[in-house]
Amino acid sequence: MIKEQLNIIKVGGAVVEDEGSLTGLLMSFSSLRGKKILVHGGGKIATEMADKLGVETQMIDGRRITSAEMLKVVTMVYGGLVNKNLVARLQALGVNALGLTGADMNVIMSVKRPVELVNFGYVGDVKYVNVKALTSLLDAGAVPVLAPLTHDKEGTMLNTNADTIASSVAVALAEKYSVTLTFCSSIPGVLKNVDDPTSLIKTIAKADFDPMVADGTISAGMIPKLQNAFEAINSGVAKVVITSPSNLSGGTTILMDPETDD
Amino acid sequence: MIKEQLNIIKVGGAVVEDEGSLTGLLMSFSSLRGKKILVHGGGKIATEMADKLGVETQMIDGRRITSAEMLKVVTMVYGGLVNKNLVARLQALGVNALGLTGADMNVIMSVKRPVELVNFGYVGDVKYVNVKALTSLLDAGAVPVLAPLTHDKEGTMLNTNADTIASSVAVALAEKYSVTLTFCSSIPGVLKNVDDPTSLIKTIAKADFDPMVADGTISAGMIPKLQNAFEAINSGVAKVVITSPSNLSGGTTILMDPETDD
Repeated sequence: MIKEQLNIIKVGGAVVEDEGSLTGLLMSFSSLRGKKILVHGGGKIATEMADKLGVETQMIDGRRITSAEMLKVVTMVYGGLVNKNLVARLQALGVNALGLTGADMNVIMSVKRPVELVNFGYVGDVKYVNVKALTSLLDAGAVPVLAPLTHDKEGTMLNTNADTIASSVAVALAEKYSVTLTFCSSIPGVLKNVDDPTSLIKTIAKADFDPMVADGTISAGMIPKLQNAFEAINSGVAKVVITSPSNLSGGTTILMDPETDD
Repeated sequence: MIKEQLNIIKVGGAVVEDEGSLTGLLMSFSSLRGKKILVHGGGKIATEMADKLGVETQMIDGRRITSAEMLKVVTMVYGGLVNKNLVARLQALGVNALGLTGADMNVIMSVKRPVELVNFGYVGDVKYVNVKALTSLLDAGAVPVLAPLTHDKEGTMLNTNADTIASSVAVALAEKYSVTLTFCSSIPGVLKNVDDPTSLIKTIAKADFDPMVADGTISAGMIPKLQNAFEAINSGVAKVVITSPSNLSGGTTILMDPETDD
């Protein structure tokens, strides 16, 4: 049976916060045919809002330490400000957007990250994606707009990385759909030289990735993004791309690991 | 044809903000059988958050003047903080809660209030309730949790009074359902003497209301609440009650206007 196409676009905070990039992204997204899901970040706005409220921002390896006060900030900023403005703007473009956190219809349940070397606080690791609920919403013609928030099904919201949400949802929905997962940020893809946008790497395999991390070609936030991308492409997602809003059909395509004989 | 029952409970900011009242309300709401919708306020939390952010709160006749900065605050507080915490807590009680603003699936479209004597700013007057979308969500087993926010379908969120949202949705859904609309606040109903909770008026008709406003028995926030209640009961809603969370089956029942011969 040929699976129906599903596009999942993850858009980072830097795109959400730049009016020009955001407008381009929303226009491109609205013109995508068929079933689709938007996943958004919003970290910079959360950091700004936390500053204004006197809540200290602490990041470890690019991940936000989420105290009880910071959880309030991200619930407001991701679930309210960013999510509802995206939904309103998509509705204006004729997209039947429906803003969701993991708590809504229990679409994504997570578990508070255990304290090991670092206490990340109210950060959730995804345990369950509700394929039935998401499928029923897609079938009803809704276009889910997912905020990077989940819940523990015990009454507490949890902060969850938007790339992780996008890849978890893509992997879970791959059982029903032929999923294209696109990570959309302010850079055009994986670059050989981060200062040169023309040094785009068109395809990347896990075998290329490890040496590129070792020699520093790939660093910082691109490392977890690529890890999510490899995880997705090797777990049933049909296509995974890292690109920028102006170039949704280009960017860096992630290659599946070669099959082994074992 | 006998219409299916639908319970719409509107819970005010004072209940949402008091942990004891909120827990009671959520327990009562979770035990209601059949289709149901929760509508919430959150004005006090919005005012507190605005204070912290240095955004001035200005109220006229109990309605919030909504500047661009205040719109950000209410979008964060109503759409994010309050809505998502209610959803997470209801999910923990086994209720398939789905948080919505008017923008989500375009469930409530409004028009920015025209400037007459007062410029209310980004305040929306309800123009359209999407019965089809709400019915499809209810049929899918979702329990909508409505924040007091709408949109103009042109990309802008608007602040809309929660009592108005509750009565507008009740009236619109009355074509499909036998709707019971319950306004739930920190007082047990309409009181003859606001300082004496035992002076509860069990039923009230529009004919009783006007003289009670004139003599000051009914005042302040109870006036628009009762106006919404009379509007609802005279527009097809089966039952309208004003009560407190601990007394969902009691309170003051609103009477329909007598039919006239014209």
